[in-house]
Amino acid sequence: MPQYKPKNRLTPQTYIDGVLKGDRVILSRAITVIESNLETDKILAKEIIQAILPASGNSIRIGITGVPGVGKSTFIEAFGKHLINEGKKVAILSIDPSSQRSKGSILGDKTRMEELSHLENAYIRPSASGDTLGGVANKTAESMLLCEAAGYDVILIETVGVGQSETAVHGMTDFFLLLMLAGAGDELQGIKKGIMEMADMVVINKADGNNMASSEIARLQYQNALHIFPQSDSGWLPVVTKASSINHTGIDVVWEEVKKYKSLVVKNGYFESNRNNQKITWMYNNINDALKQLFYGSDVVKTKLSKLENAIVTSEISPVKAAEDIMSVFKDHFK
Amino acid sequence: MPQYKPKNRLTPQTYIDGVLKGDRVILSRAITVIESNLETDKILAKEIIQAILPASGNSIRIGITGVPGVGKSTFIEAFGKHLINEGKKVAILSIDPSSQRSKGSILGDKTRMEELSHLENAYIRPSASGDTLGGVANKTAESMLLCEAAGYDVILIETVGVGQSETAVHGMTDFFLLLMLAGAGDELQGIKKGIMEMADMVVINKADGNNMASSEIARLQYQNALHIFPQSDSGWLPVVTKASSINHTGIDVVWEEVKKYKSLVVKNGYFESNRNNQKITWMYNNINDALKQLFYGSDVVKTKLSKLENAIVTSEISPVKAAEDIMSVFKDHFK
Repeated sequence: MPQYKPKNRLTPQTYIDGVLKGDRVILSRAITVIESNLETDKILAKEIIQAILPASGNSIRIGITGVPGVGKSTFIEAFGKHLINEGKKVAILSIDPSSQRSKGSILGDKTRMEELSHLENAYIRPSASGDTLGGVANKTAESMLLCEAAGYDVILIETVGVGQSETAVHGMTDFFLLLMLAGAGDELQGIKKGIMEMADMVVINKADGNNMASSEIARLQYQNALHIFPQSDSGWLPVVTKASSINHTGIDVVWEEVKKYKSLVVKNGYFESNRNNQKITWMYNNINDALKQLFYGSDVVKTKLSKLENAIVTSEISPVKAAEDIMSVFKDHFK
Repeated sequence: MPQYKPKNRLTPQTYIDGVLKGDRVILSRAITVIESNLETDKILAKEIIQAILPASGNSIRIGITGVPGVGKSTFIEAFGKHLINEGKKVAILSIDPSSQRSKGSILGDKTRMEELSHLENAYIRPSASGDTLGGVANKTAESMLLCEAAGYDVILIETVGVGQSETAVHGMTDFFLLLMLAGAGDELQGIKKGIMEMADMVVINKADGNNMASSEIARLQYQNALHIFPQSDSGWLPVVTKASSINHTGIDVVWEEVKKYKSLVVKNGYFESNRNNQKITWMYNNINDALKQLFYGSDVVKTKLSKLENAIVTSEISPVKAAEDIMSVFKDHFK
């Protein structure tokens, strides 16, 4: 029986040529294929990716994160416009494993970066939807490759949700930017442990009006804190600055620091080694996800697991023995 | 063909009774069974663990880490003696995935805590040996259960190696103690990212002699840094103090803080929920290790993987497609 195939699909070569020529309409349609869960689209997507792969990679990839309310959209709008004024082509992608396309996140994304979305050299694409972080991250990372092949030379990848996706974004970008607000303490509740240590740069956002003094205090506090923490393999010392999207201050400094960073890591070899490691880790993450899917997706395992969790908590069985028991059930069933 | 069975093994019940009575000689011999890689010993070990499981858990488990040179052994000797003076029975275990029993680490451990090792209420056991961190961590965690069943009410688990094992120790303890030295900066190179944020307490060690002033500066710096970082689920704010094993100062404060911590987390329910989560995570870690062993241990996978890594780096194949290719090879082979 033939599988369902959407009518409005183009030939593989049309997608490939269109992306390589930088055609925005074709780029969008190619990303739609990548985001699709239909089997026929998955085959098509693989063919497109395989063909554009050699043309990908020529960009600086910047991850941007921060809790809701930190002013991410406004910052990205200001930063994006600055980059375009500098002659760059900017693509903005996002990762939000909790997003549901049908619930209006497209509309949300279009309206929240209004000015930027009308510029010729900006390409904005909301988060792909999906059930697993791994699935959503794959789609975003592959969309990033398409944008690069289409000539976008700065890719901004933002996390939209809270938690979880920061590590995924960190794993696919060259530079990781954390937006914070002044008034250390409460606003940190939303930042998960370990995120701070990933940051190549912390920007105290909304450093304007009544926040001027407290932003400078926050900047010094974070700067001191980050200097105490272990240095990254990149050899880069994270910087802390202030920015205001309203006053248009500090935006240019962010780009200057990104350029300094890139020049350092290209020189010391970290840029390339990190990219290679990211690609290999990407494969291993997919393998490990698939292995877990194979195991935890099987019915015999599901039934046994919840029983074992209870038995472990009540000390009826040791965790080591429980793991052995369920592995033998799985092996018997799989063979 | 019958398997090799060591001659000097006791009956299962002899181990079980001996451990539950707190017999140190039997305890040591039971741990030897747990650490053994012989199949007959593994079966025996499971029987012992299963029987003592209900008697385990009645201790406070303290993880202790810090880079080589920070004075861990001297600190643990001083801390252990303090606990024994307070009427506690103290067991000291360690995790060192790189340890090779034959290379003399037993001798090392016996001599480095000379005074403590002669005390009736102290039990010192060096790290189990093994090829994988998961394997070594299992053995240490099961030895910990035996020590608890034998009546030890404070378990100190130290990391001996650098890196890696901190997360394993954190995953099996209630309280995580990080030893540091004054002179922020260089000495941090050995501490991996993320470790600092696990700490419930940081002790600036060797706060004596010429280090007095710099230790106080370091204490303040870490205290400020830790306050900026996200709070733990336990509701506990990490404390930073100073200690000197030579001057016998600050050791009592560590124990006071551990007691404060325990009283807080018992009250707010974190102590129990964390223990339960740790047990369940322990099972999942074992399952995931076994799954990886099944996959990465297979010859077809090994051969294909190194080829794929090269193809990924040279952009001949996308990481997603590479993962799919190798999963289908594995599935075909396994069936």
